[in-house]
Amino acid sequence: MHYHDKESQVLVAAVRGELTESIHRGHIAVVNIHRHTVAYAGNPDHYTFARSTAKLLQAIPLLEAGGAEAYGFNDKQVALLCSSHNGEDAHAATADAILERLGLHESALLCGVHEPYHQPTAERLKAQGIPLTPLRNNCSGKHSGMLALALLRHWSTGQYSDLEHPVQQQMLHIMSDMTGIPAGQITLGTDGCGVPVFAVPISSLAYAYARLGQPIDLPDARAQACKRIIKSAANEPYYVAGSGRFDTRLIEVTQGRLIGKMGAEGVFALTVPEQGLGIAVKIEDGSMRALYPAVMEALIQLDLLQKHEIEALSEFQQPPIVNCQKAVVGRLQPVLKLEVHSKSI
Amino acid sequence: MHYHDKESQVLVAAVRGELTESIHRGHIAVVNIHRHTVAYAGNPDHYTFARSTAKLLQAIPLLEAGGAEAYGFNDKQVALLCSSHNGEDAHAATADAILERLGLHESALLCGVHEPYHQPTAERLKAQGIPLTPLRNNCSGKHSGMLALALLRHWSTGQYSDLEHPVQQQMLHIMSDMTGIPAGQITLGTDGCGVPVFAVPISSLAYAYARLGQPIDLPDARAQACKRIIKSAANEPYYVAGSGRFDTRLIEVTQGRLIGKMGAEGVFALTVPEQGLGIAVKIEDGSMRALYPAVMEALIQLDLLQKHEIEALSEFQQPPIVNCQKAVVGRLQPVLKLEVHSKSI
Repeated sequence: MHYHDKESQVLVAAVRGELTESIHRGHIAVVNIHRHTVAYAGNPDHYTFARSTAKLLQAIPLLEAGGAEAYGFNDKQVALLCSSHNGEDAHAATADAILERLGLHESALLCGVHEPYHQPTAERLKAQGIPLTPLRNNCSGKHSGMLALALLRHWSTGQYSDLEHPVQQQMLHIMSDMTGIPAGQITLGTDGCGVPVFAVPISSLAYAYARLGQPIDLPDARAQACKRIIKSAANEPYYVAGSGRFDTRLIEVTQGRLIGKMGAEGVFALTVPEQGLGIAVKIEDGSMRALYPAVMEALIQLDLLQKHEIEALSEFQQPPIVNCQKAVVGRLQPVLKLEVHSKSI
Repeated sequence: MHYHDKESQVLVAAVRGELTESIHRGHIAVVNIHRHTVAYAGNPDHYTFARSTAKLLQAIPLLEAGGAEAYGFNDKQVALLCSSHNGEDAHAATADAILERLGLHESALLCGVHEPYHQPTAERLKAQGIPLTPLRNNCSGKHSGMLALALLRHWSTGQYSDLEHPVQQQMLHIMSDMTGIPAGQITLGTDGCGVPVFAVPISSLAYAYARLGQPIDLPDARAQACKRIIKSAANEPYYVAGSGRFDTRLIEVTQGRLIGKMGAEGVFALTVPEQGLGIAVKIEDGSMRALYPAVMEALIQLDLLQKHEIEALSEFQQPPIVNCQKAVVGRLQPVLKLEVHSKSI
């Protein structure tokens, strides 16, 4: 079946008072390990950058080459490789511990510097006059993993963010292998942290996540790498994102039954390992405020969340819009309707 | 002509590397003082909250009642009544000066407190431990004007933000009068600063701005109020917004030939007084990053900007997307196509 001519669908409404003030359109693909699109909204083959949803896949080359054993990484450290973390103290310390095992200094990280996502941490650092370092960058785990791969393979650790560097060629190839999209058909760009980003159809991203969660058709070393990634994220959800973050809360509340990862510009990817399902979401306008309501609603319509889990995550499903008087003046409201092809999901 | 069945149009693309990563749809209406829609994109009758674009209209009741003379307001102070200002020192001082003329303290302002829009000011206040006051709220000018209206009319100055208070009833009526939409057909909500917001078709908002700039069909006191508002904004653009802001730069660069005002959730309204034209824009998803590129492109297609003006405002037309290494990795690119009905604009 071809979906290429499908338009985006309205996924989430921003309601204020009596009126829908703004709307967010987008695309959703739900794909199984047989590469069948079992449910969708909008155009499931919509082509977009995976952004940070790629991080769980990008950890595979290091782990399948034995990197976790070689450097003795624990689950927290593996989870951090896959994270867009909050830059809280424990995140920065874990990135630092990874680098220490590599015998490298934080100055080896090419991710650049930004304020921690975690607002209280950002404010505390500023108030105490503590300078920002690349360890606080939400991508410091991924970059540390790239450095680990370079060391393990005896490649240079300089310029590892260049597309021509063998590390980035490995990233391109794992994205191609896992999504089933030939490398030549993956569109390239540069991420916020300076490394290449990879664009694929969201159905292919969902497929990659289905396989990540249930790697039955993959070579043994790769399958083991996938299992370690899932186990680490399930065991250490705080290290995938951090305090108050949806990715962390989703894993915590479902006790690892669902593992999901956000990406910039309104992208989300999620795996349901037990069922061999992958889900990918793209908010057309790149808005993050619409992302979690859309993901939550899709999970509810797919019957993937239990009632108490929905309640525990309700702040993400219909977040209130609050004004300067702390009054609730509106709400983000999911309005999407998933088209479900197969009841066998 | 009826436009109600028209869908939104793609106005702006967010391009990264070789790919359009996200798109922003929306609606544009260009209306003359005869209430003819002379150009549009998407659905010019799309109904949305005017948000802060209403502020120039909301200053009319005070000025037509003689408030500027009664309190001796200068152009800076009148411009601030209409502003969503940056909360820079001069903005806060001007709000304070208005309140002093009213014999009121800043605690009379019900707008609440938020960090100044102007980042360097926000950081300096924080570093110096200076507490935020309502004077720094971007709406402090509008709220001061509401207090002035209440005093002038001998109404209570408490609870002036309630819809039932005569001040807000005046706001509803001026919105109705200027847009030509009966008060009963104006949908209500609550703004970020706690006062009612008013939803109308964007073509009606554009019509109101056309009349604001060329008030030839209005009663004399109201026409004089409109002229004072336009003159004050043209003379004191810094007090309409502030350093680095599009609203301010647009007025400066065109030397007051165009007067425009942003509103939250991706709304913009603009008047071309000489030509009796009003323009209103709504970004469907509420995104602010797409707003100025869309406005700039509409102005260019309407031939309302000269070449050197376009150059002087180019940072707003195609703003770069910059990453943590300060590298340009993408760009916001206007892609809209205005449908022009009448060449006589």
